[in-house]
Amino acid sequence: MIYLDNAATMRVFDCAICAAENVMRNEYFNPNATYKSGVAAHEKIEAARRVIASAMGVFPDELVFTSCATEANNWVFNSGIKNKKGNIVISAGEHSSVYEPAMQLKSKGADVRIAPLRKDGTVDEKALYGIIDNNTALVSVIHVSNETGVINPIKSISENIKKLAPRALIHSDGVQGFLKTNDTVSSLGVDFYSASAHKIGAPKGIGLLFIKRELNIAPLIYGGGQERGLRSGTQNTPYIEAFASAVQEFSRLCESSNIQSIRNELCECFTAQGYRIIGNGNNSGYILCVCVPGVKAEILQNIAHDDGVIIGKGAACSGTKRGNRVLSAVGLDQKSIESCIRISFAVDTSKSDVNNAAKIIIQAAERIRSEHVG
Amino acid sequence: MIYLDNAATMRVFDCAICAAENVMRNEYFNPNATYKSGVAAHEKIEAARRVIASAMGVFPDELVFTSCATEANNWVFNSGIKNKKGNIVISAGEHSSVYEPAMQLKSKGADVRIAPLRKDGTVDEKALYGIIDNNTALVSVIHVSNETGVINPIKSISENIKKLAPRALIHSDGVQGFLKTNDTVSSLGVDFYSASAHKIGAPKGIGLLFIKRELNIAPLIYGGGQERGLRSGTQNTPYIEAFASAVQEFSRLCESSNIQSIRNELCECFTAQGYRIIGNGNNSGYILCVCVPGVKAEILQNIAHDDGVIIGKGAACSGTKRGNRVLSAVGLDQKSIESCIRISFAVDTSKSDVNNAAKIIIQAAERIRSEHVG
Repeated sequence: MIYLDNAATMRVFDCAICAAENVMRNEYFNPNATYKSGVAAHEKIEAARRVIASAMGVFPDELVFTSCATEANNWVFNSGIKNKKGNIVISAGEHSSVYEPAMQLKSKGADVRIAPLRKDGTVDEKALYGIIDNNTALVSVIHVSNETGVINPIKSISENIKKLAPRALIHSDGVQGFLKTNDTVSSLGVDFYSASAHKIGAPKGIGLLFIKRELNIAPLIYGGGQERGLRSGTQNTPYIEAFASAVQEFSRLCESSNIQSIRNELCECFTAQGYRIIGNGNNSGYILCVCVPGVKAEILQNIAHDDGVIIGKGAACSGTKRGNRVLSAVGLDQKSIESCIRISFAVDTSKSDVNNAAKIIIQAAERIRSEHVG
Repeated sequence: MIYLDNAATMRVFDCAICAAENVMRNEYFNPNATYKSGVAAHEKIEAARRVIASAMGVFPDELVFTSCATEANNWVFNSGIKNKKGNIVISAGEHSSVYEPAMQLKSKGADVRIAPLRKDGTVDEKALYGIIDNNTALVSVIHVSNETGVINPIKSISENIKKLAPRALIHSDGVQGFLKTNDTVSSLGVDFYSASAHKIGAPKGIGLLFIKRELNIAPLIYGGGQERGLRSGTQNTPYIEAFASAVQEFSRLCESSNIQSIRNELCECFTAQGYRIIGNGNNSGYILCVCVPGVKAEILQNIAHDDGVIIGKGAACSGTKRGNRVLSAVGLDQKSIESCIRISFAVDTSKSDVNNAAKIIIQAAERIRSEHVG
């Protein structure tokens, strides 16, 4: 089976499994205990934090471990920013873990403004700057879209926002961007950046929030004062170790990865078939959103599955939600959205797997069309 | 080294490590994906939920997985109860993950009332009922104290509260109570009950909140709608499997465990030395709080460590906090608190380990006293 669904990014690296297992088996001590084994556990957390911070180009004390990026995103929206009485600006391309907390604040009376997307899937910068003003407290723009793989130019967006609204805090959801673009987090000019470990080879259940030094943020979770009082709860030491291990392995694999060129070849192959690639020339190498005209993605997905290829359609984060808010915002009509497949790549997805998958997908699409025609 | 600190309850069972490892290696698929492997991952989560629910005597759909009990406790205090404008009642014996969220609400203007403790460490029921009224929205009383091991009679407390304030919701922090008392959660009559997996042989980083059927509770974390929309974020499938595996193993070990009698013998041994046991005859078998007169716990802890026994003093949840709020509430003066050691037992702590530890502790205490006298 060739997994080109989000399972491609869910595989856990061997080294990460071993790191987690070793902590569970041998170093299970409470990192807040004061005896030697506890102190050693604490020191391992800090060493892991340094590894991850270095990969992000930030200071270790700017990172707080959370249970997932969804928690990190929620935190930003519940961190007391709402008390500032300013307005909140998000893009229409946000993941539900940003969109839903924003809608919660809106339902409680907050002034939440949504910047539209361009047809290439990026945020419409002109419209974005038009709804930001001196009272803007928070702006959240996703780094790399989980739906389309399109990369927002966060660095220049941040610079422009700071000119328009110097007091506004800037957040970017970096779940699909962390280690997957050429930008370091420090270069983006943001105040908050969320990341998830399970998108880069660590297990599901750990993420982080980058919080720029000297910023105050109220905790989402109070208690024993772990993570410098910002995120209470006994730390998940096995997964923190696995996170750092995965960061190192992912970075190593990136050096020899040709995923961008594999993806570009696949784009050419699909374009030659008349399929429409959603995005622009500057997309992430890890996600490809393709509209296959005249074909229902769900049927294509099922046939491809039977033929040995697993592909996605829309976000898998919730199998129960109807429609696709982000693809609608890109300007696709309902019929086109229903024809969109989403292909995800791992850092080490092979060219031959992708070539085989392309053949299977194209054949399946042809079969669906001919059966409909016939 | 003999671990009678909270490390005793932090050890991860082999079966739980294997369960987590298997999911990380072979079943890492997104439980919200719609293809076969995703559906299988989802089904494994539900099977695990059934195992845990059965051990608690509750319905599976009454359990929501969280990243830890601290999160679960915070959730109860942030679930919209604060919008009800009623008062909130907690006991003075609560863990910081209940106390701090309550204090947060208080700082925002909520009417938070604290019921004192009796000298045996249980909540003073007369005082508790005295501060509950028709406007009480939430009452939170810890099941088993993490400081003293004392068991609050939650069942009769719940019955009495429901008579006094029928609309009040009742929460009990069950981190030290889950599987460690003879009560099932359903028998306690509570609306919410929190549990942590790492106290019963699973890894750190997973917990749950029991929410009584037909109760509405607003999510703490919004997003993709996982956990029936109540706790978004991709589920931590490896740890959920490990949690269920640990519940089964812990229950099995309980059947042959004589930890209660080992603890009682240790109590007798310490009492014969003139040490004071904090609590009553109905304490948990897993935690023992002992005041060693004339001896500073910190020094005793260090000497015992050098002699091969690790014991605690006060809660380890935060090594940085001063004083001990709970032991103060029990009525101990500062000097007595500084003489209190905390001994934790695992379900399979052996009698010989405890006997050896007792000798080492008593000898260490004698040495400290004689050096002071000399």
